[in-house]
Amino acid sequence: MVPRSFKKLVFELSKLPSVGERSAYRIAYHILNKKNEEVKILADSIILAKESLRWCSFCHGLSDDLVCEICSNSSRLKDQLCVVERPSDIFSLERSGSYRGLYHVLHGSWSPLRGVKPEHLTIDKLIKRLHINTKVNEDPVILPLSELILATSTTIEGDATSLYLADALDELKLNVTRLAQGLPKGGELEYADDMTLRMSFSGRRRI
Amino acid sequence: MVPRSFKKLVFELSKLPSVGERSAYRIAYHILNKKNEEVKILADSIILAKESLRWCSFCHGLSDDLVCEICSNSSRLKDQLCVVERPSDIFSLERSGSYRGLYHVLHGSWSPLRGVKPEHLTIDKLIKRLHINTKVNEDPVILPLSELILATSTTIEGDATSLYLADALDELKLNVTRLAQGLPKGGELEYADDMTLRMSFSGRRRI
Repeated sequence: MVPRSFKKLVFELSKLPSVGERSAYRIAYHILNKKNEEVKILADSIILAKESLRWCSFCHGLSDDLVCEICSNSSRLKDQLCVVERPSDIFSLERSGSYRGLYHVLHGSWSPLRGVKPEHLTIDKLIKRLHINTKVNEDPVILPLSELILATSTTIEGDATSLYLADALDELKLNVTRLAQGLPKGGELEYADDMTLRMSFSGRRRI
Repeated sequence: MVPRSFKKLVFELSKLPSVGERSAYRIAYHILNKKNEEVKILADSIILAKESLRWCSFCHGLSDDLVCEICSNSSRLKDQLCVVERPSDIFSLERSGSYRGLYHVLHGSWSPLRGVKPEHLTIDKLIKRLHINTKVNEDPVILPLSELILATSTTIEGDATSLYLADALDELKLNVTRLAQGLPKGGELEYADDMTLRMSFSGRRRI
């Protein structure tokens, strides 16, 4: 009863994350009610993003070019490196405006349960970047670093990844830090989970 | 910092209904992690649906062809016509399996607040379909109808539209019905709103 091309569109849309069947129908209708040009712009942006986006040769973040905008930006602090799990983490940190250094994207976290081992991540490339004698020439990072910031998530996997990294980089004698863990801004004690409360308590600081 | 083509994709995705900025990011990443062919299939399905879908010449529902699958289906009951607001309402009713007749899509409801007048809907076309002497020859509907079912939504606009239709079609002396209103299946009295309770009470039936 549902026209073939409509059914096909709904089917393809419902494969996307956070799009259920009902949302897929709603989106499909929305698309049909758009002008031809607008629909073409949407379809083209999908193809273009897929075709032109790649991983930056140095930080392995998302980039339109061989080297991303951050790695090729001369005003960034080049003796600070922040290690994140996903390319999107870079955008989150950039939005917060709290960091002006360089990045390294691991493309995942160490997760035995999901079968992700350290060798599946870009850890070998990170180690290479930090060794003065093996470092690729054009890599903007200035060695030795003043600080290596581990900005992995505060999950078990993120913790394990940070510990693994700290261990693997131990011989380089770097100044390694990790993002603070505690109550989120606007967070009330009543709603904080036990683990967060414990973290924020043990990490308490003099004001 | 966010690559241009990625930003563009997120921007286009976030225009879609029920897709916020965060979902748009998530969907964009998902698309980037897909194979090229899969991404092309998604983009093509958007373009194809937009290009090939049209309104059925008779019922004004969604169709791949000039006449939709329901209007051209010889096994449908052709002396019953069910009036709905949106093309998607047809799919909902078909899914419920409760109806075997034909449809007419109004493409909206009478809503003075949103500036939608009866003449913006396909009411004139409905009246034409129901007048034996003006009816388009190939229209599958068999006149006089045994029943005209008003399946507009149970909102103020839907009620107003049904009343307007009943009035406009009065001279045709049709057997006009409206979908029952009351408690939804699985609904508990405690959670029903007053209006629904009133409806279900005044429409109570002997069992």
